[in-house]
Amino acid sequence: MLEELKEQVLQANLDLPKHKLVTFTWGNVSGINRDAGLVVIKPSGVVYEKLTVKDMVVVNLEGEVVEGDLKPSSDTATHLVLYKHFEDIGGIVHTHSTWATSFAQSGKGVAALGTTHADYFYGTIPCTRPMTGQEIQKDYELETGNVIVETFRTKGIDPNQVPSVLVHKHAPFNWGKTPAEAVHNAVVLEEVAKMAHLSYQLDQHVEDMDQQLLDKHYLRKHGADAYYGQTT
Amino acid sequence: MLEELKEQVLQANLDLPKHKLVTFTWGNVSGINRDAGLVVIKPSGVVYEKLTVKDMVVVNLEGEVVEGDLKPSSDTATHLVLYKHFEDIGGIVHTHSTWATSFAQSGKGVAALGTTHADYFYGTIPCTRPMTGQEIQKDYELETGNVIVETFRTKGIDPNQVPSVLVHKHAPFNWGKTPAEAVHNAVVLEEVAKMAHLSYQLDQHVEDMDQQLLDKHYLRKHGADAYYGQTT
Amino acid sequence: MLEELKEQVLQANLDLPKHKLVTFTWGNVSGINRDAGLVVIKPSGVVYEKLTVKDMVVVNLEGEVVEGDLKPSSDTATHLVLYKHFEDIGGIVHTHSTWATSFAQSGKGVAALGTTHADYFYGTIPCTRPMTGQEIQKDYELETGNVIVETFRTKGIDPNQVPSVLVHKHAPFNWGKTPAEAVHNAVVLEEVAKMAHLSYQLDQHVEDMDQQLLDKHYLRKHGADAYYGQTT
Amino acid sequence: MLEELKEQVLQANLDLPKHKLVTFTWGNVSGINRDAGLVVIKPSGVVYEKLTVKDMVVVNLEGEVVEGDLKPSSDTATHLVLYKHFEDIGGIVHTHSTWATSFAQSGKGVAALGTTHADYFYGTIPCTRPMTGQEIQKDYELETGNVIVETFRTKGIDPNQVPSVLVHKHAPFNWGKTPAEAVHNAVVLEEVAKMAHLSYQLDQHVEDMDQQLLDKHYLRKHGADAYYGQTT
Repeated sequence: MLEELKEQVLQANLDLPKHKLVTFTWGNVSGINRDAGLVVIKPSGVVYEKLTVKDMVVVNLEGEVVEGDLKPSSDTATHLVLYKHFEDIGGIVHTHSTWATSFAQSGKGVAALGTTHADYFYGTIPCTRPMTGQEIQKDYELETGNVIVETFRTKGIDPNQVPSVLVHKHAPFNWGKTPAEAVHNAVVLEEVAKMAHLSYQLDQHVEDMDQQLLDKHYLRKHGADAYYGQTT
Repeated sequence: MLEELKEQVLQANLDLPKHKLVTFTWGNVSGINRDAGLVVIKPSGVVYEKLTVKDMVVVNLEGEVVEGDLKPSSDTATHLVLYKHFEDIGGIVHTHSTWATSFAQSGKGVAALGTTHADYFYGTIPCTRPMTGQEIQKDYELETGNVIVETFRTKGIDPNQVPSVLVHKHAPFNWGKTPAEAVHNAVVLEEVAKMAHLSYQLDQHVEDMDQQLLDKHYLRKHGADAYYGQTT
Repeated sequence: MLEELKEQVLQANLDLPKHKLVTFTWGNVSGINRDAGLVVIKPSGVVYEKLTVKDMVVVNLEGEVVEGDLKPSSDTATHLVLYKHFEDIGGIVHTHSTWATSFAQSGKGVAALGTTHADYFYGTIPCTRPMTGQEIQKDYELETGNVIVETFRTKGIDPNQVPSVLVHKHAPFNWGKTPAEAVHNAVVLEEVAKMAHLSYQLDQHVEDMDQQLLDKHYLRKHGADAYYGQTT
Repeated sequence: MLEELKEQVLQANLDLPKHKLVTFTWGNVSGINRDAGLVVIKPSGVVYEKLTVKDMVVVNLEGEVVEGDLKPSSDTATHLVLYKHFEDIGGIVHTHSTWATSFAQSGKGVAALGTTHADYFYGTIPCTRPMTGQEIQKDYELETGNVIVETFRTKGIDPNQVPSVLVHKHAPFNWGKTPAEAVHNAVVLEEVAKMAHLSYQLDQHVEDMDQQLLDKHYLRKHGADAYYGQTT
């Protein structure tokens, strides 16, 4: 079942080491078929070199395994919360990419400091609040999803316009319309995190970019009147 | 038409990922045929692995497409302003290379801190002023070119002697006598930006190099009495 | 003798340059056969490209060469002290990996700043105290082992839960149940050292992670109720 | 003539890009035949990919070309001064390697912060004083050599024990008993410069290593009683 989605999810997982976003098995990609209400996700703790289509695990939105011999990623519950609340997304990527993770460990979001950021993210990529002891001890992975959703709701951020988040003291999650787009956004996040980090080293008080410049760049690629790229 | 120039521009574009100056489609190279008054430029948003000579777009100095099936780079208007005002240049490269972009995001130029810089750039590589809301909202790409030209004019910098600029909160543009030389300068900019960044981390008050040392290195490669390299 | 262990130790040594943990001959891996009371270790100062199974040196726990034509690593005495005191470990790796070494040179341990760290190390990776003149001048390599053991004993750290250490003004040692696991831990140490370094640059007062989050991540992979990865 | 030395010098030059010590043509290696009083050096401004044995230039100690169709490196005069004053050295390497150059640009030497450094350099790698206007304008490359020699003489450093130097606002020169050893030292310099840089970022007041530890590590590899590596 869902062979095409499995192929996409496998390929997206294999792209993580290619883009140097993961060390060993750190990271996972999933994709959803909204009609079937089913999610395809990487199995837990399997090395990328050995992953095949047959290893992909199919779960329903309650987290029950519908198909597959292996246990799904230990982060599956987080993915499911995001699919339930962020209704337009079709793929999710979790990595511990180095520069983005350094922001998460510092409890800071990645502010929009330049047009590279603005071409993909419409404002600051937020960092979640610290989780409570109770959230950590009970249903930790599900609560990780909840705190992400809470962050976007309380800050009034549209997850379609800011397709990444930093989980406090943990690492980033990224999403997109497809698993491939989610990986693409994960690559961009790592690069803009590095650029922002280096900018703060040059000037720790560097200001966020002008709102009009942010609008211009985000909207020329993503707005109703987008004119970047080819019309296909 | 302009097959040789197209070949050069294609090759220069392909050299960007080879030198790790670009991620995905971020970046573009153009070249000009001054006699014909025509510019060859990369199409917008096409991945480098798929670029061929036939994808190259030919535009005139008013920005009208003269040949090609694809839309030219969204930065075309910026390139054209530079070709009109910097009359000796034959190629232009735009990248979001990481270290140089961190200076642009911080609103700082890259000062001449050592002879690596002085071998290619005769003084500070400037950063433009912030663009006004009006410039951003109307003819943004054209105004980006204008603010670059203004920077060189008001600071009294010769673009032939400082073949790169940082656009405020954006990223670098580089140029040269040919598309290949422009790419060469883009590589050097990224390297001297990294060296300068690391120098400031060692000592945030590090001074610019001595003027006589700057003269010596720049002029032994570029002056009338240059003696670096082979006489060909 | 010990052909299988020699093969494992050779492979683990060859993995060091593959993971970019060593320059030239800097680094060495050993493995122990507890039943035989014998250790297989890399020869001193031989380049990795030329290492073969036959070059592996077998020593007893007194450091006497039992088999092999080459001199064992000059750090052999340090390895032996660790095998004697850390009774559950089966492999040891010494590298001068860049980011971890910068912590050793600064005399700082690598604190647990995030879950990447917590997935492998149950708390701060300690840095040893400076060695005394006497320790340096007499039986230096043996005393290096002793100061490592002392560090874990006086700080009350379980070497099975924190399988790496930074030797003051020197570099890291790492261990594991096998030579391969020791190399795995050496890779993780370097990555978490880099992440911690970058986090301190963003905020020099960044706090250690919450104890409950540390417990959660370490124990979901290593505790009695571990649920990460596949049950094999 | 000197075919074997030419082969060694060619190989050493080709090793520079392999070790990522140079960009484009930045860098050069030479070797000396002390009996013949002749130096083999890279030609000026030729790209590494095209270098062949026949391109190597032979000069005498007065800098006159004895054999070769190309102009020798523009830094030849610096090399010759070093060969004249540092009588035990057989090869010299000049690079603009990134981290070492950041120290040169900051006017700082690379202090001995750990045993990686001590395994190769017996103390601080010095940075020269700024050159005077007169030195820059007249016989610049020769005076660059003189200021290096002056630095070692006035600081009482033995060039055999510290085989690298940073030229103020310029970049490193390295040497060794052979061209290959000089390249080896250039690689080590870049690595210890990076480690030192990262250590200062963790603690800007980090202290130099203990003299006894420096003695121990330097002398176990280089002293009369050296015991590192294989006796051959």
